[in-house]
Amino acid sequence: MTQRPLILITNDDGMAAPGLKALVEVARHLGEVVVVAPDSPQSGQGHAITISEPLRLKKVNTFESIEAWECSGTPVDCVKLAKHIVLKDREVNLCLSGINHGSNASINIIYSGTMSAAMEASLEGINSIGFSLLDYSWEANFSACKPFIQEIITYVLSNGLTNCKLLNVNIPMVNHEEIKGCLICRQSEARWVERYVESEDPRGQKYYWLTGDFVNYDDGKDTDIWALENGYISIVPSGHDLTRYEAIEHLKPLETAVLTN
Amino acid sequence: MTQRPLILITNDDGMAAPGLKALVEVARHLGEVVVVAPDSPQSGQGHAITISEPLRLKKVNTFESIEAWECSGTPVDCVKLAKHIVLKDREVNLCLSGINHGSNASINIIYSGTMSAAMEASLEGINSIGFSLLDYSWEANFSACKPFIQEIITYVLSNGLTNCKLLNVNIPMVNHEEIKGCLICRQSEARWVERYVESEDPRGQKYYWLTGDFVNYDDGKDTDIWALENGYISIVPSGHDLTRYEAIEHLKPLETAVLTN
Repeated sequence: MTQRPLILITNDDGMAAPGLKALVEVARHLGEVVVVAPDSPQSGQGHAITISEPLRLKKVNTFESIEAWECSGTPVDCVKLAKHIVLKDREVNLCLSGINHGSNASINIIYSGTMSAAMEASLEGINSIGFSLLDYSWEANFSACKPFIQEIITYVLSNGLTNCKLLNVNIPMVNHEEIKGCLICRQSEARWVERYVESEDPRGQKYYWLTGDFVNYDDGKDTDIWALENGYISIVPSGHDLTRYEAIEHLKPLETAVLTN
Repeated sequence: MTQRPLILITNDDGMAAPGLKALVEVARHLGEVVVVAPDSPQSGQGHAITISEPLRLKKVNTFESIEAWECSGTPVDCVKLAKHIVLKDREVNLCLSGINHGSNASINIIYSGTMSAAMEASLEGINSIGFSLLDYSWEANFSACKPFIQEIITYVLSNGLTNCKLLNVNIPMVNHEEIKGCLICRQSEARWVERYVESEDPRGQKYYWLTGDFVNYDDGKDTDIWALENGYISIVPSGHDLTRYEAIEHLKPLETAVLTN
């Protein structure tokens, strides 16, 4: 690549998030960076898109000498608007999303705005990486993970990706010297066990507020959760095909059941 | 099953949608039905959850002698609230979502509130089916598909599901006698090619409104799109593991690249 690669950056925590700033700081040395990020936090938005109302774009000066736009929609909207409106269908060489404040490992990928934005870009044929640090705090310290993120981006820019266009990268919340390296993993089998905090608003109306615990059911040592619990950065090559191929044969009798109806 | 099975029904088009009514009419003969549906349309919500604000539940009398609750959140919120608050962790035998007004075949599964609600229930260990009719109109005619839906629900209640807990069922918009049967399929490789309608609001501010065309890139005859285009109901056994296993080996050199950093 003789020209500098064009790198689109987005996130789900919004334009003001320290994690976005950290990612821009790394990527600006590796290519031409354009940022299109939500104008408000969008955590838990999953693959939501805005179809029933219009979207707004506003140019901002958040990062010195970096083109940046705030978008009124979801992370997926940001990627769609970036490609079609901001970049006017210029070829994007890489899409980066994050750095998310908090884990997107395992089942979190399906709830995550960060990963959905990256997945949306991958659907457009763009190699994409979502980065997350296992620290939910707004004041999370991203300095330990920046050299690793730079290494991963450089690798993907140089080598491309084979058989996938999307990486889910999660980084343990430890000091730089405690990170043992990175492991290529599969998505661990886990889920959230929810609870609702039940209370009354000032007008005496009952409300429910979601909380819960992440529970890992998977004792495999090839999973992202195992990697993270053992001091490694987890990298899961990911896609968008939800078919359970191993169930197809078992369901064939249903074809007959419906035909003889 | 000597007791009547407990069937949870939800959707993403909201409590007032004709598709929900049609699904309740079929399911009420097959078990004890409880409905928890959004209080407003939630199309395109994907796997969004509400974490930054409280949720409300309101008991409604939409369906005669059926327990029904409106929820202020997303389709995924409905399932979580149904399980933990409305049903107080009673064992749910089947979750049904839909009938969606419009296709959720192929890549639409990842944008779909209908399918995300069903997937959420499957994550809780509940066999789940999302139904969609390929007619986006609010006045869609569901009478042709009701006998087929009844057959599919009956089959799953009697036989359970093997190697999966989630079915994505899409029904072509044709008359009953034109439906050739159903086919067990894989998710077709397709995507939306978006356009934005660009305009100005009454205050002279520019806005963008999403539209686009669905493009199928997959010429396999084992896909949901092929089935639907040829007059069959498509049934895709689906899951939540997004790992691209075929990419893992190719990425192994990245482990070394980061270690030698």
